[in-house]
Amino acid sequence: MKGVYAEVITIGDEILYGQITDTNTQWLGYELSLLGIKVIRKSSVGDRYEEIQTILQEASQRADLVILTGGLGPTNDDITKKVLSDFLGQPLVLDQEALKDVSGFFLSRGRELTDINRQQALVPEGSTILRNQYGTAPGMWSIREQVVFISLPGVPYEMKGIMKDYGLSAIKKHFQTPAILHRIIRTAGIGESMLAEQIKAWEDALPSHVSLAYLPSFASVKLRLTGVHENRHWLEEEINRQVELLLPLLGKYSYASEDINMEVHIGNLLKAKGKSIALAESCTGGYAQHLITSVPGSSTYFKGGIVSYSNEIKEKELGVSKALLDQKGAVSLEVAEAMAKGILTKYQTSYALAITGIAGPDGGSVEKPVGFVCMAFASDSGEVFSRTVQFGKERDTNIKASSAVALNLLRLGIEGKL
Amino acid sequence: MKGVYAEVITIGDEILYGQITDTNTQWLGYELSLLGIKVIRKSSVGDRYEEIQTILQEASQRADLVILTGGLGPTNDDITKKVLSDFLGQPLVLDQEALKDVSGFFLSRGRELTDINRQQALVPEGSTILRNQYGTAPGMWSIREQVVFISLPGVPYEMKGIMKDYGLSAIKKHFQTPAILHRIIRTAGIGESMLAEQIKAWEDALPSHVSLAYLPSFASVKLRLTGVHENRHWLEEEINRQVELLLPLLGKYSYASEDINMEVHIGNLLKAKGKSIALAESCTGGYAQHLITSVPGSSTYFKGGIVSYSNEIKEKELGVSKALLDQKGAVSLEVAEAMAKGILTKYQTSYALAITGIAGPDGGSVEKPVGFVCMAFASDSGEVFSRTVQFGKERDTNIKASSAVALNLLRLGIEGKL
Repeated sequence: MKGVYAEVITIGDEILYGQITDTNTQWLGYELSLLGIKVIRKSSVGDRYEEIQTILQEASQRADLVILTGGLGPTNDDITKKVLSDFLGQPLVLDQEALKDVSGFFLSRGRELTDINRQQALVPEGSTILRNQYGTAPGMWSIREQVVFISLPGVPYEMKGIMKDYGLSAIKKHFQTPAILHRIIRTAGIGESMLAEQIKAWEDALPSHVSLAYLPSFASVKLRLTGVHENRHWLEEEINRQVELLLPLLGKYSYASEDINMEVHIGNLLKAKGKSIALAESCTGGYAQHLITSVPGSSTYFKGGIVSYSNEIKEKELGVSKALLDQKGAVSLEVAEAMAKGILTKYQTSYALAITGIAGPDGGSVEKPVGFVCMAFASDSGEVFSRTVQFGKERDTNIKASSAVALNLLRLGIEGKL
Repeated sequence: MKGVYAEVITIGDEILYGQITDTNTQWLGYELSLLGIKVIRKSSVGDRYEEIQTILQEASQRADLVILTGGLGPTNDDITKKVLSDFLGQPLVLDQEALKDVSGFFLSRGRELTDINRQQALVPEGSTILRNQYGTAPGMWSIREQVVFISLPGVPYEMKGIMKDYGLSAIKKHFQTPAILHRIIRTAGIGESMLAEQIKAWEDALPSHVSLAYLPSFASVKLRLTGVHENRHWLEEEINRQVELLLPLLGKYSYASEDINMEVHIGNLLKAKGKSIALAESCTGGYAQHLITSVPGSSTYFKGGIVSYSNEIKEKELGVSKALLDQKGAVSLEVAEAMAKGILTKYQTSYALAITGIAGPDGGSVEKPVGFVCMAFASDSGEVFSRTVQFGKERDTNIKASSAVALNLLRLGIEGKL
């Protein structure tokens, strides 16, 4: 079975000149790989007729599927549609369904449909539209000499919306990609190489139609199992069987066998148990609470917290004794534990998490260098656990990595695995 | 004067498959545009000999400068150097300076130099190295048929480090780009189109060798003035003159005539005045404090704050009366003001900022829909100012935009401009 090759082309000077971050191509690359389609090249070109024309020609020689994003707006510098129409050798005609969508978009906002807006509903004859429920420019699906061209607006949430609603399923159907199944196992608290060591025998014994990818981020590694086979049902059972073999090897390091992040998992745990939390942060300066509250509905279990940046606040608000601060220093296991107990008592929650450390770039010493961080978990049943971690020299990384490691400590505490 | 054209090529399957975010091309595009070099295309290809060879051929037909990132590691799948050596028609030879750097890198970490590491010091004969002080793979500068090729490691901080230390100045020197000067004016609290309206007459009157770019982000628009001229001294004076004309038009909307973000500017203000702040956050859940504490040295003016997610904490810890919460609701100007006064008194700071709102996706009403946010500024001289803003439906955007707008309120309060 020959693979399906794809190219992704983004159009717009603002991308070339680095004025905006292109998140579209990463998203598309990932989603296509999940369909078993191989992206062989990504390109960005400017808003110029010849450049777009040239790259369409080039890409159509190499790929079975070409996805373009950007340049579909109503203004003069958005010329993708014109180039595409000429490239396909098809005039632009008014698409009634697209016109209905564009009209609806403006009507629902109490605005009038201008002639310029109406042009959004023009598509090359013979192309079909992929409806856009998030903006005014429809996606387009065109075929020339057996190569499929999908043209999408550049605004990320419109592009993703169109692809999720219509594009990805149309690709799957058209190319009749074989059954592909993915399973994500989320782990935390173990590095990529140690993890690989720990599951080596299992990985080596994987059947040839199942592959494994390690996707690391702060204090966390996603394991992605991908199976490709003609028989979907059989493949499902095979992957389930592999996951059952894998989980015991991971022990407490795996926290979910689906693709959810740590803060969502913690939220699920707390909601299921009807428990509450509070946080006390020093070096992470509110970032750990930001992660917790990034989850919709977190107000049902997160009561609140304190950012105790100064020692004065640690003393007055968290009840950390001056003697302890003087004796052990603000960055110490003892102070982390006192902070956790302090916020637990004050906010009357089931669990509490505290973090104190040296984010840098200044403030380090030989004994406690920049990146030295202490964290503690406390529960209303009287448990207290604390940990020390040594991170690197970069402030932003220290803040984010400390928060991630601390949330894993909180998770282990709630799960009773400390 | 013909412009200098550049192409940027990233190499690596992990970029094509969307497994990592490519931040290199944006950074390079922006830095090159600051040198007056026009990026005409960006491409990503996989770690395969033929693909890299093909794109090198193609790019060398179109551009004066080709920058490659990635594929320089010591393992087998990193083959950029092999392709480049063949493309240049030059064998790989050991570069003594590069060897010294690689040896030093391992020695300083107490590790031994292996044969594989030693290979990092191989470069195509006739190419010069761009020293890497952040890792083991040196950058390389090669010329073929008058086209310059720069090959860099893919790790972002190594790539950026090499370019800042050596690459950008070498490009500037080689291509003898004309004097280019940039000035950034940072604004906040005014949208791009209103801003454009406000400075239209000034912008229309700009001389042809000075151009203006609007670079918007959350609640903030950067204005970038770019001047290109043979006479550097004359250009400097011209740009200063234009900035002097511009600033009065911007009034309180401009907060800095250099490229610093709001949280750094607030830090500078507070340090200069010897003043302190505290924050009380509800819907932003710690994110505004994260911004404040992302600035190195923020502990000198930020005492701390409270994330008062539950009403209980707003009452008990911030002294917001139950009557007020019942009568006006937790999301109201009155509660925002009470929160600001509460944290100001409790933490005994010069200034305080409070934010309360509905981040969504749930919790909205007809009167107070999702995205409705109230914020208040308070000072120890008794001033209190509050504002209401209506954002959109997306939780993450609401959190970040609310924090940005609130920091601008804090800035205006500190500057006495409310």
